[in-house]
Amino acid sequence: MADGRAPRPASNEDVLALHESLSNWARFGERDQLGTLNLVTPERRIAAARLVRSGRTVSCARPLPTEPGPENPQPVLHHMIGTAAEGWGGDFIALAPHGFATSHIDALCHIFHAGHLYNGYETARVTSHGALDLAIDALRDGVVARGVLLDPPRVQGRSWLEPGEALHPEDLERAETAAKLRVGPGDVLFVRTGRWALRAANGPWDPRKRLAGLHASCLPWLRERDVAALGSDGVSDVVPSGIEGAGLPVHTVAIVAMGLHLLDNLELEGLSNACAEEGRNEFLLVLAPLVIQGGTASPLNPIAVF
Amino acid sequence: MADGRAPRPASNEDVLALHESLSNWARFGERDQLGTLNLVTPERRIAAARLVRSGRTVSCARPLPTEPGPENPQPVLHHMIGTAAEGWGGDFIALAPHGFATSHIDALCHIFHAGHLYNGYETARVTSHGALDLAIDALRDGVVARGVLLDPPRVQGRSWLEPGEALHPEDLERAETAAKLRVGPGDVLFVRTGRWALRAANGPWDPRKRLAGLHASCLPWLRERDVAALGSDGVSDVVPSGIEGAGLPVHTVAIVAMGLHLLDNLELEGLSNACAEEGRNEFLLVLAPLVIQGGTASPLNPIAVF
Amino acid sequence: MADGRAPRPASNEDVLALHESLSNWARFGERDQLGTLNLVTPERRIAAARLVRSGRTVSCARPLPTEPGPENPQPVLHHMIGTAAEGWGGDFIALAPHGFATSHIDALCHIFHAGHLYNGYETARVTSHGALDLAIDALRDGVVARGVLLDPPRVQGRSWLEPGEALHPEDLERAETAAKLRVGPGDVLFVRTGRWALRAANGPWDPRKRLAGLHASCLPWLRERDVAALGSDGVSDVVPSGIEGAGLPVHTVAIVAMGLHLLDNLELEGLSNACAEEGRNEFLLVLAPLVIQGGTASPLNPIAVF
Amino acid sequence: MADGRAPRPASNEDVLALHESLSNWARFGERDQLGTLNLVTPERRIAAARLVRSGRTVSCARPLPTEPGPENPQPVLHHMIGTAAEGWGGDFIALAPHGFATSHIDALCHIFHAGHLYNGYETARVTSHGALDLAIDALRDGVVARGVLLDPPRVQGRSWLEPGEALHPEDLERAETAAKLRVGPGDVLFVRTGRWALRAANGPWDPRKRLAGLHASCLPWLRERDVAALGSDGVSDVVPSGIEGAGLPVHTVAIVAMGLHLLDNLELEGLSNACAEEGRNEFLLVLAPLVIQGGTASPLNPIAVF
Repeated sequence: MADGRAPRPASNEDVLALHESLSNWARFGERDQLGTLNLVTPERRIAAARLVRSGRTVSCARPLPTEPGPENPQPVLHHMIGTAAEGWGGDFIALAPHGFATSHIDALCHIFHAGHLYNGYETARVTSHGALDLAIDALRDGVVARGVLLDPPRVQGRSWLEPGEALHPEDLERAETAAKLRVGPGDVLFVRTGRWALRAANGPWDPRKRLAGLHASCLPWLRERDVAALGSDGVSDVVPSGIEGAGLPVHTVAIVAMGLHLLDNLELEGLSNACAEEGRNEFLLVLAPLVIQGGTASPLNPIAVF
Repeated sequence: MADGRAPRPASNEDVLALHESLSNWARFGERDQLGTLNLVTPERRIAAARLVRSGRTVSCARPLPTEPGPENPQPVLHHMIGTAAEGWGGDFIALAPHGFATSHIDALCHIFHAGHLYNGYETARVTSHGALDLAIDALRDGVVARGVLLDPPRVQGRSWLEPGEALHPEDLERAETAAKLRVGPGDVLFVRTGRWALRAANGPWDPRKRLAGLHASCLPWLRERDVAALGSDGVSDVVPSGIEGAGLPVHTVAIVAMGLHLLDNLELEGLSNACAEEGRNEFLLVLAPLVIQGGTASPLNPIAVF
Repeated sequence: MADGRAPRPASNEDVLALHESLSNWARFGERDQLGTLNLVTPERRIAAARLVRSGRTVSCARPLPTEPGPENPQPVLHHMIGTAAEGWGGDFIALAPHGFATSHIDALCHIFHAGHLYNGYETARVTSHGALDLAIDALRDGVVARGVLLDPPRVQGRSWLEPGEALHPEDLERAETAAKLRVGPGDVLFVRTGRWALRAANGPWDPRKRLAGLHASCLPWLRERDVAALGSDGVSDVVPSGIEGAGLPVHTVAIVAMGLHLLDNLELEGLSNACAEEGRNEFLLVLAPLVIQGGTASPLNPIAVF
Repeated sequence: MADGRAPRPASNEDVLALHESLSNWARFGERDQLGTLNLVTPERRIAAARLVRSGRTVSCARPLPTEPGPENPQPVLHHMIGTAAEGWGGDFIALAPHGFATSHIDALCHIFHAGHLYNGYETARVTSHGALDLAIDALRDGVVARGVLLDPPRVQGRSWLEPGEALHPEDLERAETAAKLRVGPGDVLFVRTGRWALRAANGPWDPRKRLAGLHASCLPWLRERDVAALGSDGVSDVVPSGIEGAGLPVHTVAIVAMGLHLLDNLELEGLSNACAEEGRNEFLLVLAPLVIQGGTASPLNPIAVF
């Protein structure tokens, strides 16, 4: 409830304070590698599987982005090395998944703060041969959890949020109320901004300049609810952040302080429509990152099962 | 039952006959893109989700193979582009997923036979800009099905099959019996040979020369059981095939005639152990290929959920 | 002399006529692979070497372009795989040299016209395994020739030509006169537009929309002078071409009809200054493309020696 | 002359002593970036150009090695992205030039010794964004010098040296005598072992185990003669080195102590034959590395001009 909340973070000092107040360091053990994904227990997986009622599946990934554009300065390479002429079909892909274009999950080794990674690991753990801690292959057995879609634009009767529009906890809770559910411990939360619908309608723009997303004020809320992972069709962070000195405070506090994995650049239009058709915003969600030893991220295709 | 079976295919003519007798062309519609994955219905997904009882998850993928070796002439590239020195963790991967090293799923456009793809599509559909039909992104909403592991070496009290050792339907049925289950329509079947356990113990060998796997005689059995997809820690095919003129008859008949997707080079040691510990060889299985437009394959990490 | 010239090509029909009138097909033999580079004879190489008087060398290449930009939608990848941390220095590069950013030389197999390559080869010679004729490795023994710089902006007392500004034969001849030389058979001609000086001063622009360069009217002049190869800091062609239906007529007529190799996106600022300081616009020029079997182009670093 | 020579280096201590005795640090200035390439003066370039007499040119590069093999664990990628089907010819290449397969030139930042690079630079200069000193783009204006081929196998009436066979100064001088010349300051010296002829005849082998080349005893000779750069069809070093604790002493002493650039994996069969036909082993030699900012090496195609 809005009136009981702490004042919104307005400065970088406020963000630095969140690194302390929201910290999950040592909560899951001194050598923990999974952060809030530890909250996805076997019991919660069983409960998530029971959410399957219609058997409908929906992808939450964009196609690998091969076309250049303001959000895609380093396009994914996709070369056909086998075609009709060769007598077989074969291809080659090359990508650096971070950024504003590829649907991917960040490992906890992706972001540094004040010389450390989540859980106090030294940044030196991120070597040229891969990350020795908090790498993406810690997630090799997948994430199988209750997925929840919060859909502020749909709730507001809009097709999308405007680039740069910030979401605050009250917006998330309004979307919860509309969805008749409550986000809780061990959930994987997806927040839709309608980014790709806007792009399809009006063309691309430079997301490093403006992008709808969560204001840093949502961080305490994410911690209270003990969300296991957070994803968006944007990068979760609103851009600009509104906080001088902190460019992506949600990324930094979530990943480094909270050990909360982020999923960026997802495709949520199909999921939004499926939720409307299925009449519910919760589903079994499966994340299956590639097993990249020492990796800092993986492209992935989250699958929602209703 | 072995005594009622047709004689084993022994020649390329026999294999060509299987292209006719096992054909699923037009079975799922003239413009079908999914082949036997059509057998994974919403009802079957719901039933598969009900197989979740302990909440344990197991990966069925090898790490992306970056080390050269006889089975890996074109290693996956993995470059760290962000490390401690850069102030963030980031990486780049490049791979051509086909072959004998990367855990991947073949699209139906991967294999040609007699100038056609599955369902009669012209090979010209596989263009230099991607495949216009039967591409891997037809699977974008994932595969959520009952997974079954048949584990002949474990059943025989062995750690692995010898490279070049062939499995016949009676071997699959013996493994079924031991697992107290029956493979049926819409199942995703994984067959373990113990390949990576052997490699860990005795070192690599050239799999293009010899590899344990299914003899072409298994093809009618796969068709009878209406398996939705087939995977192995090998490439399903036994190498050598034992059939002159047909190098990989399981690949060719399954993909082109039956529209049966194959998953190659999986990691099944963990799954084998999990099945033993869980006391059952069936589980919810989720396949989440990357969305690669026009692609002929995707690296992936199949997740089994007990 | 301008008054004796044929009327300027104004239509695509005029350009098609040039394919006939300027054709070098069969001139150098039915199985020729080198086009006008055949004009660089041993005698001409010896004479070119005699142009070395001061011993000064100048590069004519831009650094491999790793930064995205309007002229560079698919940046060159440059990853450091060995650094201080690894105990050695090592790197990886990946590039597709064609386009408007990388300094490269086009092979004669790069451009097709009316179903053929230069010298009547079928386009089918350009296979997925490389070009079977007219590939860049035909130039493996290098090009060692008299190099000439024509520098219209300097001649006009300007820093650069405006994007989209067309050069006609009279402009080339005015630059010849100023340089007190005459372009002749077997020469490698570089024409400067000042493109990179403009970019450094005013920022990048999309060269596919406008770029200074040669109007198609220069093609007969290039043929008369029997130029062996042609390069520019642009792509030789003026953009827009001014000829409806012919986007890059210089590329097409030069490469396909004349067998005249083109070098694109060179760096000519240094060469321009060196010519001014050396007091001459002719020099020994060495082109050393990489030996890429079946390749359609090579990045390269042309070296001028005064 | 052999009898006046210092005893052959036999131990790693001897090699460490060479780092002192052969050092060129500060010889060319405290901020020098070029090492012994400084010895290629304008006068020497003019003299080299005068070596051109017949106008014959010869490549000293192998094709970019795309086939896997014992000497090529990470093959060069070459993908045709434009073919007959696309209406144009285009390609993509990706490579990490170091190693035993690609013809390349090492930058001086490639090798470290005792925490430093050549001329005392800190290894920290080799960053993840490229080398800040001693990078390959210091050679952007090319190397134009007198080239000399010393050809011990031909001199001995053999087709090739055996893998692992060591060359000592007396072998180099015997080859000089046979060539009727003397290697001197500012020369670029190529030493042929016949490696690729052997490979063509008898198949590939693992060069990391055995490779013909120079014994560390050649290092003082290279310093006395003030060679500007050194290349080979091998990697210059004999493998094994014969010196415990020093795997590639020629690489290490040459690059770090002497600032002597090395060129590896050249193709010298054509040059050897050309020298025989031309009746001389000296020629104009042009090296034109790609301009790779901060790079540690460049693939290249050295051109010899007779």
